[in-house]
Amino acid sequence: MRLLYHHPLLASARKVRLALHEKRLFFEEKISLPWEREEAILRLNPAGEMPVLVDEDGTTVFDPVTICEYLEEVYPEPALIRGTPAERAEARRLAAWFDHKFQREVIQHLVVEKLVKRAMANHAPDSRALKVGRDFLVTHLQYIGELTEQRGWVAGSALTLADLAAAANISLVDYCGDVPWESYPAAKEWYVRIKSRPSFRSLLRDVVPGIPPAPIYADLDF
Amino acid sequence: MRLLYHHPLLASARKVRLALHEKRLFFEEKISLPWEREEAILRLNPAGEMPVLVDEDGTTVFDPVTICEYLEEVYPEPALIRGTPAERAEARRLAAWFDHKFQREVIQHLVVEKLVKRAMANHAPDSRALKVGRDFLVTHLQYIGELTEQRGWVAGSALTLADLAAAANISLVDYCGDVPWESYPAAKEWYVRIKSRPSFRSLLRDVVPGIPPAPIYADLDF
Repeated sequence: MRLLYHHPLLASARKVRLALHEKRLFFEEKISLPWEREEAILRLNPAGEMPVLVDEDGTTVFDPVTICEYLEEVYPEPALIRGTPAERAEARRLAAWFDHKFQREVIQHLVVEKLVKRAMANHAPDSRALKVGRDFLVTHLQYIGELTEQRGWVAGSALTLADLAAAANISLVDYCGDVPWESYPAAKEWYVRIKSRPSFRSLLRDVVPGIPPAPIYADLDF
Repeated sequence: MRLLYHHPLLASARKVRLALHEKRLFFEEKISLPWEREEAILRLNPAGEMPVLVDEDGTTVFDPVTICEYLEEVYPEPALIRGTPAERAEARRLAAWFDHKFQREVIQHLVVEKLVKRAMANHAPDSRALKVGRDFLVTHLQYIGELTEQRGWVAGSALTLADLAAAANISLVDYCGDVPWESYPAAKEWYVRIKSRPSFRSLLRDVVPGIPPAPIYADLDF
């Protein structure tokens, strides 16, 4: 059986889970705490980082970007990186935008403060960091709104890895109840669509022990 | 004509230059300071980051990982990501290792302190950061030595994107004269091979204004 080592607090692992579900690939889940470097994961991945995918034939793949490229090569349908080389580049660069820029600007400030530090050590969040994260979040919501109004989805007229990367990251902020959806109707319209997909169901069932999600987190009519 | 916006201090841009040269793709260079967000680059890339590639047909590609995947799709020979999906995943995950882990552990401490801060603002390096960078560097040199002794190249029996990512990053540390080559003969043997390739010549001519390279930097017999 295919196996994924992951944790609900990792946006990169959420993206991989969405990709697996979009491709209708069944997998067992092994959940570990990201800050406890488990022996089993270190044996598989010298970087000690999740997600780690062990495919049905035993092929072990890690690094979230590498896992998504691997899935695209081995299970090409439905395609998540599609079209001409320029269109494929657009999907990859926007996935990287959320994997890195959104991670650095929003996740590090909002989600690390509100969820990770609390789950790790019961630390209270730093209100200055929260403000920085909320300010950056606004620019990303505007950008998603502009892109999806013009194109339909983040990187073009069809759903791609870029949508999964964006939604995986935003879902963590939404868990905290920190997305001002009412002020960004275009971004909200896109998130309603992606949140309603069957691939999203497992994410909406995620619960971080001791920190319940915001009431709207699993609500499809938010 | 194909055009690359870059700067010699960016390891990610060095990797892209090596990939272009390995594929024998000619390109003009436009060098900009990474910390001055130039209007021309912001017009091309909303993230304002280099490298940016403008291909011969006008296709504009950014994000260094995306540029390398694009080159691989449009100019597949010689291949830099090759073999079975598992072998291709190994090349990608090791390229990501150097792009992210080496960057965070070594470049941020050694190269940012010794080259970037000095070039930006003539700041003296922080000796504690230098020590952290040098300590991490040792584990990476050992890892490169183990991999290349077993396999020939970093990700397998042929040169791949993983070698280019590793060499691009290490070349910046070597510019500072901070690689203890004599203690890591296996890593040195690999670096001698890659440094002697025609693709490396343009990197060896790089000079950061006001900060000359260490004497061994451009020496093929170091």
